[in-house]
Amino acid sequence: MLKTMYWQDGSLMILDQTALPLRENYIRAADCARVAAAIKTMEVRGAPAIGLAAAYGFVLGAAAFRGAGSDWDEYMKSVVRTLGETRPTAINLYWALRRMENRLQALYAEYGATEPTPETQAGFVAALLAEAEEMAADDERDNRLLGAAGAALLPAAATVLTHCNAGALATGAYGTALGVVRAAREAGRDVRVYACETRPCLQGARLTAWELRRENIPVTLIADGMAAYLMQQGKIDLVLVGADRVAANGDIANKIGTYALAVLAQAHAIPFYAAAPTSTIDLRTGSGGDIPVEERDGDELRFLAGVPVAPPEVAVYNPSFDITPAKYVTGLITEKGVISPPSAAALLKLMTT
Amino acid sequence: MLKTMYWQDGSLMILDQTALPLRENYIRAADCARVAAAIKTMEVRGAPAIGLAAAYGFVLGAAAFRGAGSDWDEYMKSVVRTLGETRPTAINLYWALRRMENRLQALYAEYGATEPTPETQAGFVAALLAEAEEMAADDERDNRLLGAAGAALLPAAATVLTHCNAGALATGAYGTALGVVRAAREAGRDVRVYACETRPCLQGARLTAWELRRENIPVTLIADGMAAYLMQQGKIDLVLVGADRVAANGDIANKIGTYALAVLAQAHAIPFYAAAPTSTIDLRTGSGGDIPVEERDGDELRFLAGVPVAPPEVAVYNPSFDITPAKYVTGLITEKGVISPPSAAALLKLMTT
Repeated sequence: MLKTMYWQDGSLMILDQTALPLRENYIRAADCARVAAAIKTMEVRGAPAIGLAAAYGFVLGAAAFRGAGSDWDEYMKSVVRTLGETRPTAINLYWALRRMENRLQALYAEYGATEPTPETQAGFVAALLAEAEEMAADDERDNRLLGAAGAALLPAAATVLTHCNAGALATGAYGTALGVVRAAREAGRDVRVYACETRPCLQGARLTAWELRRENIPVTLIADGMAAYLMQQGKIDLVLVGADRVAANGDIANKIGTYALAVLAQAHAIPFYAAAPTSTIDLRTGSGGDIPVEERDGDELRFLAGVPVAPPEVAVYNPSFDITPAKYVTGLITEKGVISPPSAAALLKLMTT
Repeated sequence: MLKTMYWQDGSLMILDQTALPLRENYIRAADCARVAAAIKTMEVRGAPAIGLAAAYGFVLGAAAFRGAGSDWDEYMKSVVRTLGETRPTAINLYWALRRMENRLQALYAEYGATEPTPETQAGFVAALLAEAEEMAADDERDNRLLGAAGAALLPAAATVLTHCNAGALATGAYGTALGVVRAAREAGRDVRVYACETRPCLQGARLTAWELRRENIPVTLIADGMAAYLMQQGKIDLVLVGADRVAANGDIANKIGTYALAVLAQAHAIPFYAAAPTSTIDLRTGSGGDIPVEERDGDELRFLAGVPVAPPEVAVYNPSFDITPAKYVTGLITEKGVISPPSAAALLKLMTT
């Protein structure tokens, strides 16, 4: 099975998603700064995958502590800062770091000390690594659960439109939106996918198309501007995307271009579903307006694979995400089931039971 | 002023739009087949510009006739076929060829002969060239007229969203949608433009951004999937696009991605205007469903400037245009004025008075 990342000999091996589909290279991240760089440059991307990478980065940070007069607590805060200051939109990043910090707090109690000694550090690191590995296992289990829940929504023959990559590559394994597609296929349904190429970074073309073709799931690539025309022709049964953050009121941040698909789906009476583990739901974010939307370098539009495709000095607006108000979301597919529509009350109930 | 094409020493000089914005190369098209190839490969593109190129191609065809047993009428039909079988959607191509054929019919009457002799051929060619040159002059005049008509629709400070390139590069000179922008600037209005990059061929990034920057009109480049997010944020005052064909009922064919913008504009209560000379209106095409939509090679999505950006064998759907139903069109801006909305009755009246 496709591995987005794995631990090996004290390092995190990360599948370099910027090299796909041309090359399947794994990067060896031996320290926390390298993990942060991999997140920032999108060598690893996708909300759940970013969270997992940050958890492993936390482990690498703890392993690299050398004591000798420096303060453990300050040091680990800097590790969290390094990992946290990479990409602001996906809440899974902060969720994962909090989970690791909570595990660390529990270790303090277990060891009866608020910092490791040279003798106990290996034990701390092993316990933190076990936590990160458990998160990866949870992620795959949750994706299979949400996949099964989502698959039940699909007709026997379904043509799904998806955006960006919410697949195995965006998670530890199996995927969210593409996990639903996988589960539907495993359940014997005839599922076909139209993949929006997803400018500017082309995750649909480079990753979703590659990932689905590996599993012989029929996929057709389109430019983002073609989705509406497909809907007009009656070729799309439902839209299925991932999410980078779900606010308490059900508003959803996801890859730029998602909001357009949601409005277009509603205009064509096509269901629009987002699939995400509950770690993506952030009740502390009131509404979509409170979600920080990352803006990336304009060169992502000015150049493509190093080739200039626009005047070099042209002004560019390059938000990496957009906000889809809850009213456009038919349902949110999670490992705890589908909430449809994702109202504030339904989300609160989901997260507290 | 920017020249999309011009006649020089018996050849048509065509600004190679596939090389922009990196290089300003003119191609020398010395025969009708080279003009057809330039249209097909989008070295020249944009409905009015395609029409003009075809008109000049007709002249080159007539000039190359060598008699000697071959049939003039058959020969000129093959010239028209070569030029007509390039790109099926823009009606201006057929309109221009018809206008040239009509001029040829008139020449038969003037010369009292239905084919040129070696002695009269130069006269035929000169008359046909004069017709093509007159079409180019008409095109610029009409663009200035429709620009002025459209400019009156803009507020004193306007942020316009445009798609593809409906500028000087898409016409003989001045442009349609961008002609409106130019006219508004000339009238002292503060106009700013967001340009959708327009995948797959990136006419927005390569051409519109380049063309507007040359005239110091503020332009910001976005990916196509960002337009809805801008609308949501209240940053767009109106959408202004060109058209490749307007059907008798007001449905409009334009560059793929246009229909999405029209639906999104309506959902955000933003006016959506198409700007086109009346040569783009085809009363013989009943509705949008009757317009042939060109599908181009999937490699336009699989590769960018020769660089693979998707799995090489992935299936691709690549329609070059889409159809925007009249109900989404606030108004059609023509050289004869603005019809708002573009109803069948209003179009019929416009074309018959």
